[in-house]
Amino acid sequence: MYRTKNCGELRLSDVNQTVTLAGWVQRIRKMGGMTFVDLRDRYGITQLAFNQEINAPVFEEANRLGREYVIQAVGRVEERYSKNANMPTGDIEINVSELHVLNEAATPPFTIENDTDGGDDIRMKYRYLDLRRQCVRQNLELRHKMAFEVRRYLDEQGFLEVETPVLVNSTPEGARDFVVPSRMNPGQFYALPQSPQTLKQLLMVSGFDRYFQIVKCFRDEDLRADRQPEFTQIDCEMSFVEQEDVLNMFEGMSRHLFKVIKGIDLPKLPRMTWADAMKYYGSDKPDTRFDMRFVELMDVLQGHGFSVFDNAAYIGGICAKGAASYTRKQLDELTDFVRRPQIGAKGLVYARIEADGTVKSSVDKFYTQDVLQSLKQAMNAQPGDLILILSGDDANKTRKQLCELRLEMGSRLGLRDKNQYACLWVIDFPMYEWSDEENRLMAMHHPFTSPKPEDIPLLDTDPAAVRANAYDMVINGVEVGGGSIRIHDANLQQKVFEILGFTPEQAQQKFGFLMNAFKYGAPPHGGLAYGLDRFVSLFAGLDSIRDCIAFPKNNQGRDVMLGAPGVIDQIQLDELQLRVDLKK
Amino acid sequence: MYRTKNCGELRLSDVNQTVTLAGWVQRIRKMGGMTFVDLRDRYGITQLAFNQEINAPVFEEANRLGREYVIQAVGRVEERYSKNANMPTGDIEINVSELHVLNEAATPPFTIENDTDGGDDIRMKYRYLDLRRQCVRQNLELRHKMAFEVRRYLDEQGFLEVETPVLVNSTPEGARDFVVPSRMNPGQFYALPQSPQTLKQLLMVSGFDRYFQIVKCFRDEDLRADRQPEFTQIDCEMSFVEQEDVLNMFEGMSRHLFKVIKGIDLPKLPRMTWADAMKYYGSDKPDTRFDMRFVELMDVLQGHGFSVFDNAAYIGGICAKGAASYTRKQLDELTDFVRRPQIGAKGLVYARIEADGTVKSSVDKFYTQDVLQSLKQAMNAQPGDLILILSGDDANKTRKQLCELRLEMGSRLGLRDKNQYACLWVIDFPMYEWSDEENRLMAMHHPFTSPKPEDIPLLDTDPAAVRANAYDMVINGVEVGGGSIRIHDANLQQKVFEILGFTPEQAQQKFGFLMNAFKYGAPPHGGLAYGLDRFVSLFAGLDSIRDCIAFPKNNQGRDVMLGAPGVIDQIQLDELQLRVDLKK
Repeated sequence: MYRTKNCGELRLSDVNQTVTLAGWVQRIRKMGGMTFVDLRDRYGITQLAFNQEINAPVFEEANRLGREYVIQAVGRVEERYSKNANMPTGDIEINVSELHVLNEAATPPFTIENDTDGGDDIRMKYRYLDLRRQCVRQNLELRHKMAFEVRRYLDEQGFLEVETPVLVNSTPEGARDFVVPSRMNPGQFYALPQSPQTLKQLLMVSGFDRYFQIVKCFRDEDLRADRQPEFTQIDCEMSFVEQEDVLNMFEGMSRHLFKVIKGIDLPKLPRMTWADAMKYYGSDKPDTRFDMRFVELMDVLQGHGFSVFDNAAYIGGICAKGAASYTRKQLDELTDFVRRPQIGAKGLVYARIEADGTVKSSVDKFYTQDVLQSLKQAMNAQPGDLILILSGDDANKTRKQLCELRLEMGSRLGLRDKNQYACLWVIDFPMYEWSDEENRLMAMHHPFTSPKPEDIPLLDTDPAAVRANAYDMVINGVEVGGGSIRIHDANLQQKVFEILGFTPEQAQQKFGFLMNAFKYGAPPHGGLAYGLDRFVSLFAGLDSIRDCIAFPKNNQGRDVMLGAPGVIDQIQLDELQLRVDLKK
Repeated sequence: MYRTKNCGELRLSDVNQTVTLAGWVQRIRKMGGMTFVDLRDRYGITQLAFNQEINAPVFEEANRLGREYVIQAVGRVEERYSKNANMPTGDIEINVSELHVLNEAATPPFTIENDTDGGDDIRMKYRYLDLRRQCVRQNLELRHKMAFEVRRYLDEQGFLEVETPVLVNSTPEGARDFVVPSRMNPGQFYALPQSPQTLKQLLMVSGFDRYFQIVKCFRDEDLRADRQPEFTQIDCEMSFVEQEDVLNMFEGMSRHLFKVIKGIDLPKLPRMTWADAMKYYGSDKPDTRFDMRFVELMDVLQGHGFSVFDNAAYIGGICAKGAASYTRKQLDELTDFVRRPQIGAKGLVYARIEADGTVKSSVDKFYTQDVLQSLKQAMNAQPGDLILILSGDDANKTRKQLCELRLEMGSRLGLRDKNQYACLWVIDFPMYEWSDEENRLMAMHHPFTSPKPEDIPLLDTDPAAVRANAYDMVINGVEVGGGSIRIHDANLQQKVFEILGFTPEQAQQKFGFLMNAFKYGAPPHGGLAYGLDRFVSLFAGLDSIRDCIAFPKNNQGRDVMLGAPGVIDQIQLDELQLRVDLKK
């Protein structure tokens, strides 16, 4: 070893020990006859002291060091004159008697500090330097710890981690697959798994009973801010279970993580039906750190001559506590916010509750104070509150707009503290959703999701109304996990396929290997998958999953550090019997 | 839950409890008015008893069950009349009062027993049924446990598991890459990693200090018996370490695994130089469960007129204890064995040590008893032993042949017990090996491996003689892990590249991103990687890695269960701007 101690562990009790440290030069301060070097490694920072009077040659060497040099220093631990209470090693320093430069360093293109001067692009290009920053490295330490604790919990619960293959077959439903040409089988391709869904179901058919895997999954999608072409799932499945069993098991897992990682005792998770989530929050992943539920105002506000409302299919309001003092400028900002093309509302109606209880609205000329008082009552608004109202001719669209407005108000009012966690289960998702594009019902979760037993008769009469045994775990408005109880009955599966518009032949072609497996004794089973990247970024308080991934890709799917993807040799293409055929 | 207990946990102490079990029908025995069903799940087998007199309707239902039906049974735990000491639940049975068929099963294409009637091909096609066999499932349970214990040990030692990307850049050295066309970057390809070697070195540059990952790696090679296109590594790297530190750390890991998994206290691992391994075993991965070392016999046997030996570049013998009684037929088999084209020896010379100490050899007409006595002495042979001798005009080739013969004799003499483990480190590998194909020196490990400091001067004078800081962990003749201390000095790296025949430009082009990273302060570092598949198959006593992989591929790289690889839609090819261009 090049060291006897690391840079984070020395304390006052170590004074007078002779130690060897190794690490990177974080900072150099030259103060006349003294030079101080902050030496950094993963474990912390320790101050090295070089005294010209005591050891002139080593002092001279220290003065020749540069930022990020890798050095080894031997010296005695001494109590500092001026202690630094902000660092764990702040009581001591090393009086250095020997100094070795293990490696020099060119000046890094940005400062290696939490508060760096490097922009996103340069940090990604030099990600190996970016990862030296404590704030970035800590996210990956957290990720390691979370993954380890997930494994510990699931192992204790009798789950087996089983590795499923990465080179699989292309699946016809879902997102676009990444494919891998096979040299040994020319003209044929593997696909990278979008999830191990069918394989984990096969493991249930195999009697594995409790399976999990922390596993890379792949989707060739056009990337949005918080998507990566490769991402990591905590993928789980259990046999002989009902929904309640799955929810309890994984509520337990989340409780374990919150306890050991954050020191938080997670209360029993509330459950909200999908219908209620849509009605009260306009979202299947409501941020319940704050209330501000939607109130439907059709009864209160229609029929008073305000044609915008009178012609609306939906009118909904939220009550922003204490925001009556919002200025004209702030209200205009909110109007601009809801009118942004990404949100698409036509306008925003507001009503202030004055200190005396009267209501002052932006549509006063259409509404009497009596009606406005009914509004106040409906919204349960108090003096000092601000009511914000959206309407539209498509109820679902309007609810989504109102959802965005609610989140914006939550942020503005400081109600979305990243250190507060509101977790819940959203349950009773619909089996199907209508696709205008495909002009058919599509599986909301996937085609193996089972309907609620009491809704099975509706499959014949009103399939769009059938609720599924499907559930999502939502934390702070982020869907961190989701799953379902699967169908294990062949007849029911066939009916579900029919409703999706598959002929028996198509079903066989698309999902044949799984359906065949189900013929040999499939147990009742169900499970779920968590997005590890999202889970970690929630725990880390990050806005993007990118900073909890060691080597993320950018929005063009590129790893700018590695220079991937890149062109490959013609020989390689020839071996694969492929030709690149670029569109002109 | 569909059960209150699993099929492995009930004991005499549970008698009179009413329980609900669920699982698969393993066996049905109809004995007049009684029917017995063995119910199986992952945890074991429990006998269900159906009594016509007590409950006729349920008895009738039981008689309609078939093999592998999935059922749920409610009943009382009762003491058995005829106990079965071979199964943990053999003292009890369930007197069934309620029976539900959860799913029927078609007759499986082979019996779900450890000793199955299914051949390899059908078992692979129906791998989900094969995995129901206890012996196969246990391998995967072992794999889970080993991976978990590796993580536990490394976590305790301060290692961080960091996920490196699967979609990376193509590397020009090493085996053939699998590539993934990028739709967003038409004409460009990602590669799947052959190992995260360069990425883990970057993490060392980042100051991660101790990294590991249990990670899938990919090689597009023509497959041999014990190779898979995707395989799993335990990949590790440490900073500020020397070889001794790495060996101690991972010897500790192996010791931990042997202790918790096998209950074996692993002694301190012996170390053998590569030169000795080649000299005494003709292999860089000697099976040291048995001795039978090579003895070089040039001095003893040359110059006596036997032209085969007189013209040989190498003559070596092994002493097979107690095998003097081998019959003519057995000796002929051995001769045939070494003459097989895979081994390629011209012939085999043997010498028996008779009870009276005289030596009887197959080349008696060339050698006096005096010379044969010197042979006996050189081989340290005793009465009853058999000396086997090979010679050839290429010393290394002959040693390899003798290695195969030694392993064969070890097997024949029962010296290769799968429940015995002989572990060692092979160290001091050469830096380079000559490639006739490339007509240049090639890196034996990889081009970032550091030479032994004392051998650095030889880089200028005799590079082929330079030894590396490289090491393999060998167990029972299998290389389970290997690694090296890496070069962290830019000048030394450049010299190593020169010897490999790279110009500075070529080195920059091939390894530029890593060499650039090294400019910014690379710490001394080193590490190793274990092959998890091999490690597990050793612990499981398997001959092939295939049975410790849930869904393996065959020798054509096919997953016959999934039907992967397969053809993909033209739309998908068009999106990738690729054309399949099959050779006629």
